[in-house]
Amino acid sequence: MEHAEFKKYIDQNKDRFLSELFELLKIPSISSDSAKKGDIVRTAEYLKEKFEAVGVDKAEICETAGNPIVYAEKIIDPSLPTLLIYGHYDVQPVDPIELWDSPPFEPEIRDEKIYARGSADDKGQLYAHVKAFEAMTNLDSLYCNVKFMIEGEEEVGSENLGIFVAANKEKLASDVILISDTSMISMEHPSITTGLKGLCYLEVEVTGPNKDLHSGTFGGAVGNPINILCDMIASLTDENNRITIPGFYNKVVELSAEERAKIATAPFSEEIYKKELEVDALAGEAGYTALEQLGIRPTLDVNGIWGGYTGEGAKTVLPSKAHAKLSMRLVPNQISKEITKLFTDHFLSIAPPQVKVKVTPHHGGEPAVTPIDSIAYKAAENAYEEGWGKKPIPTKDGGSIPIVALFKKELGLDSILLGLGLDSDAIHSPNESFGVNNYLKGIETIILFHKHFALLNK
Amino acid sequence: MEHAEFKKYIDQNKDRFLSELFELLKIPSISSDSAKKGDIVRTAEYLKEKFEAVGVDKAEICETAGNPIVYAEKIIDPSLPTLLIYGHYDVQPVDPIELWDSPPFEPEIRDEKIYARGSADDKGQLYAHVKAFEAMTNLDSLYCNVKFMIEGEEEVGSENLGIFVAANKEKLASDVILISDTSMISMEHPSITTGLKGLCYLEVEVTGPNKDLHSGTFGGAVGNPINILCDMIASLTDENNRITIPGFYNKVVELSAEERAKIATAPFSEEIYKKELEVDALAGEAGYTALEQLGIRPTLDVNGIWGGYTGEGAKTVLPSKAHAKLSMRLVPNQISKEITKLFTDHFLSIAPPQVKVKVTPHHGGEPAVTPIDSIAYKAAENAYEEGWGKKPIPTKDGGSIPIVALFKKELGLDSILLGLGLDSDAIHSPNESFGVNNYLKGIETIILFHKHFALLNK
Repeated sequence: MEHAEFKKYIDQNKDRFLSELFELLKIPSISSDSAKKGDIVRTAEYLKEKFEAVGVDKAEICETAGNPIVYAEKIIDPSLPTLLIYGHYDVQPVDPIELWDSPPFEPEIRDEKIYARGSADDKGQLYAHVKAFEAMTNLDSLYCNVKFMIEGEEEVGSENLGIFVAANKEKLASDVILISDTSMISMEHPSITTGLKGLCYLEVEVTGPNKDLHSGTFGGAVGNPINILCDMIASLTDENNRITIPGFYNKVVELSAEERAKIATAPFSEEIYKKELEVDALAGEAGYTALEQLGIRPTLDVNGIWGGYTGEGAKTVLPSKAHAKLSMRLVPNQISKEITKLFTDHFLSIAPPQVKVKVTPHHGGEPAVTPIDSIAYKAAENAYEEGWGKKPIPTKDGGSIPIVALFKKELGLDSILLGLGLDSDAIHSPNESFGVNNYLKGIETIILFHKHFALLNK
Repeated sequence: MEHAEFKKYIDQNKDRFLSELFELLKIPSISSDSAKKGDIVRTAEYLKEKFEAVGVDKAEICETAGNPIVYAEKIIDPSLPTLLIYGHYDVQPVDPIELWDSPPFEPEIRDEKIYARGSADDKGQLYAHVKAFEAMTNLDSLYCNVKFMIEGEEEVGSENLGIFVAANKEKLASDVILISDTSMISMEHPSITTGLKGLCYLEVEVTGPNKDLHSGTFGGAVGNPINILCDMIASLTDENNRITIPGFYNKVVELSAEERAKIATAPFSEEIYKKELEVDALAGEAGYTALEQLGIRPTLDVNGIWGGYTGEGAKTVLPSKAHAKLSMRLVPNQISKEITKLFTDHFLSIAPPQVKVKVTPHHGGEPAVTPIDSIAYKAAENAYEEGWGKKPIPTKDGGSIPIVALFKKELGLDSILLGLGLDSDAIHSPNESFGVNNYLKGIETIILFHKHFALLNK
């Protein structure tokens, strides 16, 4: 099949491809919100229907202790290579809702971008795989056997996916795992993510007096849990922005001068980056460039903080409790469970006697690197070269897709991260978007990947 | 009139005294919530009706740029002394609402305490004055001329009261100002507040990137406004819990060894205090006792903090903004406006280049001391001695009633702080309460104050 035929098929069907994606985007499948369970189920059912409509051998909703996993497959010839395509249909919360220019679950196109929660992360990217599969099936040119595994808990730690994968090793047997849940540098600079950070996400609660107090009557003599939480958080990094948790850096792989030089060749302008974010200065650990902070250095961010009176006007309260959500991004060879323990022990140890502190781990995941000397990487390189006329740049991403490490461990399989999004998509933020062209050209690139992966496996 | 007659009157009418107070407590007159404006107006109207019902010469609702002031007076004889009774009908917000054992605006009595927002601060205390006035009027024994000025903006800074007072000096002319908006040490240790702290209340906003970002994709390279806000707040106090704002202590009056020794004689047990609050240690500036922290040392408390994701579960966001509400309690001779400027200049100066910082002053007030050698203080002492069989202890309170300084400045009048509440009333907190006996014995004590003030002025 000439590639032009696929392009024609995509062009002829693009309105339907968009409207089907819009239907998917309209369902508010926020996995962190237990009230959205019905929407989670509806999303899984919608995907199952769509898989059935594009001619898979079978499509199933696999129940788990949490949100269901949608599984589908088409095995055309056991002698052909098999791709296991992973994606996730759950999305992030929408807060702060007031900063959205259009409602997050009423997708609309502005400036050639699809605006909706989940448009880039990950519904748009996963659905490109479904439509690529449709195009190949309908044009009778499926190059590889295909298995789809689409989960609904990626944004809350993929807790039940590990159990599913461990229990279904045979069903999931394949040659490589294909994931589109990352971004490329720009439309001019296609890139493939070859490194991902791990994650430790924790919540802390600091309790001072047993009830909210009047800050005038009690202030001074009674330890204020907000002030103390600020002290404790501030002490987690030093003046060089190094994380002060004892042992935190013990296992961090220091990159060679050569590797650091390679990172520095990526097209990246600190000036443009600062301008786009409207900040006067970048941050991060002393002695490392911004690209190094983003790709190869572990980080610690407070993701949320709350305590006391946060409404309109003034309330002179000395609150009983203060809370924060914190996460650390990990790099090879840090281990999420170990870092969780180091953090917890340290955070409890620095609590002054005026407060009681509780640390609750939320979820974690391991850092991962994907090889660049594999057949799958070569196939991806070829796909971009044919589709975009450019060789993709290998990059390291600060994001975490903990299942990449999981797949390696449980299935012995490498993943190839064929990211179709852009950093400017504002995933996890208000006004998340996904370029219409990223979607359509993504479908094309996926088809080319199937083709080149089959060719290289011959 | 024998005092026993008043006691009898109070006893015969106590059910009605309570039910009238309950009606007042049922109106959610939260001044910091602009949506409650209608309730504010209803409260003012209710008070005007009640004043009219107890036989004042006139009762008026005086409009201001904000919430109305209720004014009432009865002048029986220009040769008698005149009391100006101040109170406030507005109340604090109710958050965190889930910690209330009964709805804050459905007053109920449990264990001889009236549970409701505003029960102690200040509706219960101000209404005791209305009922004391009723008793004296109905028993034909009013000892002094009386003026009432009840405002609706005390909890948000009394901004319009100053304008009203300045514009109505003649109308408000009197011999002393009588205020019940503080607490006494305990029912066994009646006390009179002779010092109040001033207040600076500010809100700060720290802005990093121009939108919420994914903490994986951007963390490390982009300054996190929550981490930075924590750093900035932590730096406001040093390891001795001294406030680090340059110039902050310049005007603070250091107490003499004699004065400190006097403070130490107050009945106060750190052990009981810690036990009641369920904390293992007290806090505060090194070198000062808890009672000194509470009474004579300036303090800095974060009253509220918020930023990022604060909902259920996890969201890996690097937020655009973080906020806090902070207040400082001031002691003689600190000046609220000066401290506001010192704080603002300092806070802006410590902002790192990764963020932009905005400081918004909310409201402030000056510290005040009331003389203990005045006729009014002597009258209050006599009232407690006759009513409680004990001489009251003069105390300094960490709370702020900025209008005490305002009255001194504008009207040249001292205030007498005849506090009827207890520190355990949980004002500004969930489950605010006011003892039934504090209310009824308070009415009695107020009558005795009127009597002794008239006697001493003869």
